[in-house]
Amino acid sequence: MRMVDVIARKRDGEALSPQEIAFFVEGYTRGDIPDYQAAALCMALFWRGMTDEETVCLTDCMARSGDRLDLSALGDATVDKHSTGGVGDKTTLIVAPLAASLGCKVPKMSGRGLGHTGGTVDKLEAIPGYRTSLSPEAFIDQVNRVGVAVIGQTGNLAPADKKLYALRDVTATVDSIPLITASIMSKKLAAGARSIVLDVKVGSGAFMQTEQQALALAEAMVRIGKGCGRRMAAVLTDMDAPLGHAIGNALEVAEAVAVLRGEMQGDLAEVCVALAAQMVALARGLAPEQAQLQVRQALADGSAYAKMKEWIAAQGGDPTALERPDGLPAATHRLPVVASGEGYVAGVNARQLGTAAALLGAGRATKEEAIDPAAGIILHKKPGDRVAAGDVLCTLHTNRPQTADAARALCLQAVTLADEPPAPRPLIHTILR
Amino acid sequence: MRMVDVIARKRDGEALSPQEIAFFVEGYTRGDIPDYQAAALCMALFWRGMTDEETVCLTDCMARSGDRLDLSALGDATVDKHSTGGVGDKTTLIVAPLAASLGCKVPKMSGRGLGHTGGTVDKLEAIPGYRTSLSPEAFIDQVNRVGVAVIGQTGNLAPADKKLYALRDVTATVDSIPLITASIMSKKLAAGARSIVLDVKVGSGAFMQTEQQALALAEAMVRIGKGCGRRMAAVLTDMDAPLGHAIGNALEVAEAVAVLRGEMQGDLAEVCVALAAQMVALARGLAPEQAQLQVRQALADGSAYAKMKEWIAAQGGDPTALERPDGLPAATHRLPVVASGEGYVAGVNARQLGTAAALLGAGRATKEEAIDPAAGIILHKKPGDRVAAGDVLCTLHTNRPQTADAARALCLQAVTLADEPPAPRPLIHTILR
Repeated sequence: MRMVDVIARKRDGEALSPQEIAFFVEGYTRGDIPDYQAAALCMALFWRGMTDEETVCLTDCMARSGDRLDLSALGDATVDKHSTGGVGDKTTLIVAPLAASLGCKVPKMSGRGLGHTGGTVDKLEAIPGYRTSLSPEAFIDQVNRVGVAVIGQTGNLAPADKKLYALRDVTATVDSIPLITASIMSKKLAAGARSIVLDVKVGSGAFMQTEQQALALAEAMVRIGKGCGRRMAAVLTDMDAPLGHAIGNALEVAEAVAVLRGEMQGDLAEVCVALAAQMVALARGLAPEQAQLQVRQALADGSAYAKMKEWIAAQGGDPTALERPDGLPAATHRLPVVASGEGYVAGVNARQLGTAAALLGAGRATKEEAIDPAAGIILHKKPGDRVAAGDVLCTLHTNRPQTADAARALCLQAVTLADEPPAPRPLIHTILR
Repeated sequence: MRMVDVIARKRDGEALSPQEIAFFVEGYTRGDIPDYQAAALCMALFWRGMTDEETVCLTDCMARSGDRLDLSALGDATVDKHSTGGVGDKTTLIVAPLAASLGCKVPKMSGRGLGHTGGTVDKLEAIPGYRTSLSPEAFIDQVNRVGVAVIGQTGNLAPADKKLYALRDVTATVDSIPLITASIMSKKLAAGARSIVLDVKVGSGAFMQTEQQALALAEAMVRIGKGCGRRMAAVLTDMDAPLGHAIGNALEVAEAVAVLRGEMQGDLAEVCVALAAQMVALARGLAPEQAQLQVRQALADGSAYAKMKEWIAAQGGDPTALERPDGLPAATHRLPVVASGEGYVAGVNARQLGTAAALLGAGRATKEEAIDPAAGIILHKKPGDRVAAGDVLCTLHTNRPQTADAARALCLQAVTLADEPPAPRPLIHTILR
């Protein structure tokens, strides 16, 4: 088999055979197939698309390209969750212990953040003592005992995806539904959970900006996941404005604690209830409505929060730090951003706020850069809120006061005011199973 | 400017700006833009095509990527000729001196052959003493004095094309009209002639197998060449069967001599008359009909052949070798291939005959391999000819008799017989100016 013939067949709109897909994935992972042939194939795939059979095969081959976690010791209730990403998305910190408190086994591997703000691993490292690295044995053992463990990505999981994603990023071949699907799902397959719940964000702050795009991606991922033998659900959630009020690592941990203690209502809590309900429903075979009742109960009776503390302690973190006023890293400067006009908040540009938070120290531009766990933004006004001149729109938290002016300008740009309140957007757009 | 954005714009079907095209060609030639980004762009170009403005710009940038010959000392009558290639195509050996005998200046750089049979340079090297390498000064001086010089490609002509062609070859992005056009025309622009005549082959033995494909390519090359300021003509000529009777280097030289001496009529002579007429018409500003009369006259009165001998002598070759029976390299074995059936020749597969000639020693599989100038095939029966059982279809010329059986089998496959003569094909399909 010659790679140039495989490229030509896809270029001409034909479906590739399982043998051809395996030839490509294995050869590219080994380095026998050069980047330039992979790049030409990616552009042909971008153009011609893939059938579900092809995408299932690609996903499966990529999942098999490296280590795979064997979670058989954890039984049938293992459940993973993936978010397509957005600003202020701290849902993992909430839904992982919440689902675990209801009998799910949640073995979660998360990434670090690049660009806007930190990833889940960066957020957890804001908790003193928390270890984001465990051996596979210790990881599985903790999930078995506690019901949940959250660590950084370990081992050599789906190296084909890692290599291919880096190539797609520089060859303008990222935005392809089958390629995105194979990329996300191959890592989830290798991570081993029986059930997978996807949080597909939609809106100006999300990768998929229209409902139609997000729905197409969610449908593809659910189909492909099922085709690879997993139980699947996807929740399309709104990411037009940031989720919740906090952006920045320690600030988001504190907000997650507030939700788990039942002290905070609103968009963040509702999205987490919807996601956790799907996790519980899939993992335990419950009807979603019944799972949702149990989820709300676990938030109300403190069992979800108790599970969070148990989890944090199991991974070396200090659970009392979640409750003491000085328990989490705090910034030396807290600077208000004040409205000059008045009106209703028409929109909050999540990307601009994310950029502002990164300037203040909450994000990193390169993999090597350090993140300041204390830095970030608390957004006080959300879409639809009434604002008078002089009201505080948000508060900047930073140890780099020299960046405050630029961050303040971005925040003022990000929050747009109008005479009328905006049409309300749904928070949960669709649920697919 | 970022290459990934250039790729994305073409991927989305937009036309690239001159700045973007120059950024790509210059960056890729220098090595700043990696192969994988060039490969992704080539596939996007294959998919989305290019406007004439884009193709003119790409061609011009590629022509400027290396050395360019300055032919200003030769005046306005410089004319180049390019063939898209075929088996038994020795037209350059004929039309170059023919056009020069009528006042054209023909500074011709030709390639070596790879695959089937030799290129023009390989054919000329069958002539004892002929030097295929001249300094640029000696090359221009000879064209000025004699009217014609034919050498191997010299210097660093259109290195962008060389690099890009090698990449397209392994990424299934060769068959794109704008990319083929830019590849061919960039080398012709760098070679400097004011007028360019294209011989676009059409048929089963050609790169473009259908009239429609060949016409589209010819039209694009004529438009782009004019857009780059050259006088252009294209002749679509038939390449369903081999052109003429000889395949193999010395055998083709002898056949070219026969045409130039007016001793041989038929397809080869007619194609050469059509091409030379366009060369003379463009270079000297004559009406094509009048140019054609002069071309036939130059063949009839011996002036074309005299010019060939003058040219060969100027480049160190022995012109008497063209006339003496033992002047050119001759093979030790001449083996007839005999028909077992009878009928009319329905077709002669040019590619199969080319492969057979290569087996006998006339071609090379890798750049390093030596060619046997004496080896080749004389085809005695052409489409439409009547064949009786026992007739000699062709004669194998070789110094490697151990290859004869395989070559004979290929020849017998290549010549198909039928009860009825085939419908005649036009020799000259179209002329574009």
